[in-house]
Amino acid sequence: MEDRAGAPMPEEIGAEECLTLISPGGVGRVGFGAPSGPLILPVNYTVHQGSVLFRTAFGGPMDQQLDTGVRGVEFKIAFEVDHIDPASRQGWSVLIQGAAHRISSEEELTAAKAAAVEPWAGGERRLYIRITPVQITGRRIVRS
Amino acid sequence: MEDRAGAPMPEEIGAEECLTLISPGGVGRVGFGAPSGPLILPVNYTVHQGSVLFRTAFGGPMDQQLDTGVRGVEFKIAFEVDHIDPASRQGWSVLIQGAAHRISSEEELTAAKAAAVEPWAGGERRLYIRITPVQITGRRIVRS
Repeated sequence: MEDRAGAPMPEEIGAEECLTLISPGGVGRVGFGAPSGPLILPVNYTVHQGSVLFRTAFGGPMDQQLDTGVRGVEFKIAFEVDHIDPASRQGWSVLIQGAAHRISSEEELTAAKAAAVEPWAGGERRLYIRITPVQITGRRIVRS
Repeated sequence: MEDRAGAPMPEEIGAEECLTLISPGGVGRVGFGAPSGPLILPVNYTVHQGSVLFRTAFGGPMDQQLDTGVRGVEFKIAFEVDHIDPASRQGWSVLIQGAAHRISSEEELTAAKAAAVEPWAGGERRLYIRITPVQITGRRIVRS
């Protein structure tokens, strides 16, 4: 469907297809609030049992923010993946809104390590984070 | 420089070089807080006189959030652009933290229209947003 100017209307993508689109893993972006305002940081991620896993540094911006929430209230985070071709102006984007947790139990940590999510940047990035999706939405632009 | 595992350490990119990297425009991502938690949305942007310009829909998620700030306090937003090659695991990312404003004056609107920032998706996207950078940071991963 196109609007009056001939631009294609974005199509909604269902949650299940969104998960399929992001399941190969790769580069995504996390977004969360910090004292200086919202942050967006690229991460190398993997999808494991319906959750998004990535690694970051102990003491880094995310680690610090994970402790600022009121006790018992989950730390809210956004996770976005897109695949957009600037030449054809087509593509899709998926947004996951959910809660972020440090992976701390031995059992979870073993599973996360087996899922082999590797940060690209060097340095100590031993903190494994799991994002549990609460809402999954996606949009696609296709040109005929 | 590499860490013990042989992964390259990320290099900081200065603010001026960050602006140069993003100046061609293209696809970036905006991040901001909403009642449901943080959001990340891809936008087609352009850089105009040191600010980031993009278009969105009146009544959309950003338009709604622009009004939730306390009067006189600027709406904080994150804007991120990256250029990452999954094959070589190299690339850069730039993060702009700043204030987002609706462009409403006739003069600013004329300048924004001349800057020709075009949304790719169809539908009414007549709301021009300007992000005034407060902090500009960037990181680069280079493998030898």
